[in-house]
Amino acid sequence: MYHYPLPEYRHADGGQLTVRLRLARDANVDQLWLRTEPDNEEQLTAMTKEQVDERWQWWSADVSLSDHEPTFLYCFKAICGDRQRWLDTTGVGPRAPKREHQFRWLLADHPPQWIHRQVFYQVFPERFRNGDQRLNVQTDAYRYHGEVATQSMPWGDDILATGDQAAFYGGDLIGVEQGIDYIQQLGATAIYLNPVFSSPSSHKYDTEDYLNVDPHFGGNAALADLCQQIHQREMKIVLDAVFNHTSETHPWFDRWQQHDNSGAYFTPSSDTRSYYYFYDQANADSYRCWKGAKTLPTLDWGNPQVQDYFCNPKSGVIQHWLNAPYHIDGWRLDVIHMLGDGPGAKNNATRMRQIRQAVKQSNANAMVLGEHFFEASRWLQGDQEDAAMNYFGFATPVRAFLAHQDVAYQPCRLDAEEFAAWLAEARNSIAFEHQLAQFNLLGSHDTARFFTLVNEHLPTMKQAVLMLMSYIGVPSIYYGDEIGLVGGNDPYCRRCFNWDETSWHHELRSWYQQTIALRHRLPALQRGAYATLYAQGDVFVFARIVEQQMLIVAINRSNQALEVNLDLSCWHHQASHIETLIGDGQLSQQQLLLSGYAATLILCQ
Amino acid sequence: MYHYPLPEYRHADGGQLTVRLRLARDANVDQLWLRTEPDNEEQLTAMTKEQVDERWQWWSADVSLSDHEPTFLYCFKAICGDRQRWLDTTGVGPRAPKREHQFRWLLADHPPQWIHRQVFYQVFPERFRNGDQRLNVQTDAYRYHGEVATQSMPWGDDILATGDQAAFYGGDLIGVEQGIDYIQQLGATAIYLNPVFSSPSSHKYDTEDYLNVDPHFGGNAALADLCQQIHQREMKIVLDAVFNHTSETHPWFDRWQQHDNSGAYFTPSSDTRSYYYFYDQANADSYRCWKGAKTLPTLDWGNPQVQDYFCNPKSGVIQHWLNAPYHIDGWRLDVIHMLGDGPGAKNNATRMRQIRQAVKQSNANAMVLGEHFFEASRWLQGDQEDAAMNYFGFATPVRAFLAHQDVAYQPCRLDAEEFAAWLAEARNSIAFEHQLAQFNLLGSHDTARFFTLVNEHLPTMKQAVLMLMSYIGVPSIYYGDEIGLVGGNDPYCRRCFNWDETSWHHELRSWYQQTIALRHRLPALQRGAYATLYAQGDVFVFARIVEQQMLIVAINRSNQALEVNLDLSCWHHQASHIETLIGDGQLSQQQLLLSGYAATLILCQ
Repeated sequence: MYHYPLPEYRHADGGQLTVRLRLARDANVDQLWLRTEPDNEEQLTAMTKEQVDERWQWWSADVSLSDHEPTFLYCFKAICGDRQRWLDTTGVGPRAPKREHQFRWLLADHPPQWIHRQVFYQVFPERFRNGDQRLNVQTDAYRYHGEVATQSMPWGDDILATGDQAAFYGGDLIGVEQGIDYIQQLGATAIYLNPVFSSPSSHKYDTEDYLNVDPHFGGNAALADLCQQIHQREMKIVLDAVFNHTSETHPWFDRWQQHDNSGAYFTPSSDTRSYYYFYDQANADSYRCWKGAKTLPTLDWGNPQVQDYFCNPKSGVIQHWLNAPYHIDGWRLDVIHMLGDGPGAKNNATRMRQIRQAVKQSNANAMVLGEHFFEASRWLQGDQEDAAMNYFGFATPVRAFLAHQDVAYQPCRLDAEEFAAWLAEARNSIAFEHQLAQFNLLGSHDTARFFTLVNEHLPTMKQAVLMLMSYIGVPSIYYGDEIGLVGGNDPYCRRCFNWDETSWHHELRSWYQQTIALRHRLPALQRGAYATLYAQGDVFVFARIVEQQMLIVAINRSNQALEVNLDLSCWHHQASHIETLIGDGQLSQQQLLLSGYAATLILCQ
Repeated sequence: MYHYPLPEYRHADGGQLTVRLRLARDANVDQLWLRTEPDNEEQLTAMTKEQVDERWQWWSADVSLSDHEPTFLYCFKAICGDRQRWLDTTGVGPRAPKREHQFRWLLADHPPQWIHRQVFYQVFPERFRNGDQRLNVQTDAYRYHGEVATQSMPWGDDILATGDQAAFYGGDLIGVEQGIDYIQQLGATAIYLNPVFSSPSSHKYDTEDYLNVDPHFGGNAALADLCQQIHQREMKIVLDAVFNHTSETHPWFDRWQQHDNSGAYFTPSSDTRSYYYFYDQANADSYRCWKGAKTLPTLDWGNPQVQDYFCNPKSGVIQHWLNAPYHIDGWRLDVIHMLGDGPGAKNNATRMRQIRQAVKQSNANAMVLGEHFFEASRWLQGDQEDAAMNYFGFATPVRAFLAHQDVAYQPCRLDAEEFAAWLAEARNSIAFEHQLAQFNLLGSHDTARFFTLVNEHLPTMKQAVLMLMSYIGVPSIYYGDEIGLVGGNDPYCRRCFNWDETSWHHELRSWYQQTIALRHRLPALQRGAYATLYAQGDVFVFARIVEQQMLIVAINRSNQALEVNLDLSCWHHQASHIETLIGDGQLSQQQLLLSGYAATLILCQ
C-alpha cells in the first residue's frame, strides 16, 4: 500500500481534496476507505478504483476540507477478508492508528515556500570576522555581570577555558558583511545570526536592549547595511530572538545598579518588577532565572506588558526588526519551549501563538523558527512554528549513527535500522510541509563541532555533510565547519573563523560546495518526498522523489565494500536513465554496489 | 528493566519525588539516569544503586517537582558499554523516547479517588423501568420535530425500525429509583444516566431546557428523590451533559415557532442568534448542526454568553445540578471533542478547561467524563478530563479480539499480540491515575449489544465480562446486558429492560455478580498496576498487582485446551499461595493450563 500522489501533488479544488492511493497490482482488497477526522470525529469515505496499469492499482476519494482546521488529518483503511490493513505515517498496521500517526495536510499557516529552497549559514558574530578594529571591546572595558573583567583577544587565539563569555576577539557585523561573498561562494543563500542586540557577553544571549544592535557589532546602522547587502543578493537573514529571559543588567532588572536604580531587582515598587517572577517578593534573590543562571532572569510572559513589548503589532520588538530598514526574513526563537507564564512554561502554546501572530502580521512570509534540543512536534502542528532547529529529528540521530554519541555526549551506538526508525519517528507526527521546512544541522554554537565528534575522520564527515544536504528539510552550516574548524562543546565550538586559506581543509570545503550545488540543482532535494530504501547494520539508503525523478542517497558507515538490494516500490516509475552524481555508488536494477565509507547520490529518471 | 515501585507507591515529600527502578540482578549497567523535563527541557539525574537482593538490583533518584506543571514526565536512561537502553511506557529502546511515551505523574488535577472503586451501571431512562404510568407520553401527544407523531408503545414491544426517537415505552426516573435495589443486587455502585432534561425525543440528546428534567421522566422532583436515594446508599450518580448542541426546538432556536418567535432560526435579530453559527446569515437553513442533523443545531462556544450559561460559577447549568438538592457526582460530556468556537471544534481544549473548572469549582470531587469514540489521550493530560468513555482503549479492541468487528461493524480479526499492542498504545500516553479512572465498557446506547455481537455465545460473553471487571479502569455495565438483553446498533440496543425474571439469562447474570464481587473484594482490580503476561494467537493473559498480591487474568479465545508459559518478572515477589478464584485455570510455577474458552482469574500472594 503506497500513498499516492506524494504530498506535494495533492490539490484542493473549491474546498474539495482528492486523495489517491496506489496499491500493488496484485493486492487483494475488498473495500478501501479514506478515514478523516472532521471536528475530531471519524468519517469514512469509500475510495474507488480509478485504474489498473501493469504494476499498480490506483484508488481515489474526494473529501470536503471544512471542519478540519487547522490541519486535515487522514489515513487509509482496507478490508481484506476478515482482517484490516491501515496505512498511516508509520506504515501498514492491523487497526486504526492514533491521531499522532495520521497523515497531516495543512489547511492554513503554511511555512513560507522560500524556506525549503535555502541553504543556511549560521554566523556567531563575535567570532566570524573582524570588520572594524575600532569597534573592538578593550581589555578591562567593563566587568561582565559585575565580576569578570572584559578581555581583548587576538583573532584566532585559543578559547579560554573559563571566561570566554567576557573574551572578545572583535568580530562584528561589518565583518559579516565582508564575508557575504565567501558565504555565497560556498553556496549558502541565507544567514542565521546569533544574537546581535546590546549585551555584555560575547554570545549576547543576555540582552540589555532589544531595540539596539550592540555598538561593538556596529550598531543598528551596521545591521541595516548588512540586511540591505543580503537582500540585494536575494539572500535571506534570520535573527536570534532571546525572549525567554533578559540579562540581569537589562534596565528592567538592573542587578548591578548601572541605571537609574528603578530596576526590578532593587526596587520592589519598580514598574518592571512584575516583568519577572520572584518566588518570594521579600527576597530579591529569589527571582526565577534560566536553568538557575542568575545572570539570566526569566521574563514572566503572563504579564500583558511583557507580551505587548514584544508582540505589539505597531511597536513591538518582533515587528520592529521585520520592518524597514531591516526587513529581516525571520526569527529564530531561543529556548522557546521554556517560555511561559509565572514560574514555568505554563501557557507556552498560547504565548507561542501570540508570537507567531506578531511575526505574521508584520510579514506573512517571515519564518518562525523554534529552538528545541528535543522533540518538537507539539510546536509543529501549523499554529505555532514553521520549523524547528532539528536536533531531535536530524542532528542527534546523525550524531548517534556516525559519531556514536548522544546529545549529552554519552556513548550511543545505533544500527542503521534504529537510525532509520528514529528519523521516521520525528517525521511521522508532522506535516510534509513542516518536514520540508525543518532546520537541519550537524552542530551549532551549543554543541561540539561535528568534525571533532568524528575525530576529524574525513570520510565520515563527508557522509554527515551529504546527509545534511540531501535529507528532507533545510540544511544549515555552522560557520567554519566547511573549512574543518574544530572544537568541543561550548565554548570551544566558538573559535574564530580562520581567513588564512592555506589553513583550510580544501577537500572538505569542496565537498560542501559540490553537495550544496546538487541541493540547488535538484528540486527533489528541496521539495521531494522521502522514502527509506534500505537500513541495516552500517548501511543507510533513502530516496527523495519528485514526479518522474528519484534521487538515491546512500551511506556505508563501514570500511567494507558491499552490495545491497533496494526496495524501490516507493517510486511508481521505471528508470530509463541512471547516473551517479556524487560518490562512487553503482546502481543496476535494484542492486546497489557501495565502496567502504561510501557517500553517494544517484539520479534515476 | 522494570519500573519500580509501581506508580501508586511513588511518594512526593516536600516537593521531592523519589523514583525507583528495579533491574534483574545480573543486568549489566554502567550508568543509570532519571530523565525529566522541567520546563520542557531535558534534565538527567544520576540514579544510585540502593541494594541488591537475590533477584534484583534496586536503583533510585530524588528529583524536585517544581517546573513540571501540570504533569511530571520522566523516563530512564541506562548506559551499557557503547549502547544505551531507555525505559519508557512502551518498554526498552535504544534511544530517548518521544514526549508522548514518557511516564506521567500528575502533580495536580487528580481524578477523584472514588472513581476507581466504582462499578457503573448505565441507564437509558426511557427503556429501563416505567415507575409511573401517568407520566407516559401518549400517542399523538405532539409531533417530534414538527414531523413524526409521538407513539405510545407497550413495554417490551419490538423497537420500531424507523421512528424510535418518537416512540415512548414509558420509562422514567421513578422507575430508576425503583430499580436501585436491583442495581445494587448486581453489585453496581454508581449510575450513569443518559440525558434526562426536557426534550421531545425518547433519547433526549436534543435538549429543550437544561434546567428542567423532562416531565415525562418525573421532573426535577423525581431527580431530587433519585439522587437522595442513591446518596443514602453511598452510591454515585453521573448525568449526561449535552452541551455541544441543542434541540432545534430549544427556545433559543425555535425552528418550529413553538415559543414567542424570538428564536435564532426565524429572527436574525434574536438575542440568541449568536448562540449558533450560520454559514450564511441571509439563509436561516445554513446553520451549523451536529453531523448534518438539522434537528441538532450546534452551539457556538466562542460566544461568551454560551460559555457563561453553562459555566458560570454561580448560575451555570454545570453547577446547578452539582448543587443541592441533587448533588450529582459528575458529568458525562457528550461528543465533547466536537465542541468549539464558530464553525468547528476550534479552541476545544480551552473550552474543555473552562468546563472542567466550572465542575471542580462546584465540587472538586466531581467526575469529568468525556465521550470519545476514538483516541482520547489529548483530553487526558490532567487539565481536561478525569476519564474518557474508553471506546478506543477498551471497548473497540475487545470487540475486535472477541467479536471480530471494528467500531464501524466491519470485519476486524486480531491476534492476541495485536490486541495487547492496541491496549498498550492507549495506556502508554496517559498517566497511571487516568488509566485507573478510565470508563471501560462493552457497549452503550450507541453500539450493538456485546452479547449480540458474539452471536449470544456465552463463553465468549463471559470472557468479555471478565475483561471488563478486571482490566485497568472502571467497569460500566449497559442496562440489561447482564440479563442477556440483545439488540443490534441504535435503536435496537435501546430495548426495554425485561422485569420478568423467568426471561433472564441467569447464568450470565450470575457471572456478572461473581466478577463484580471480585472487583469489590480485590484492591488490585481497583488500583493495581497492569502488566501483560502473555499475548499470542487466541490467548491473552495479564496481571494486576498491588504490593505483595498479583492477580492473573487469562482468556483463551479458542475451544482448545492449552498450556502457556508466563513471564512473571513484572512481579518482584514469590508466590507462597496460589488460588484460582474464578474459572478453571491452573497455575504451577510459570505454567498456566487453560481449558477451551477459558475465562479465569488466579490469585498469587
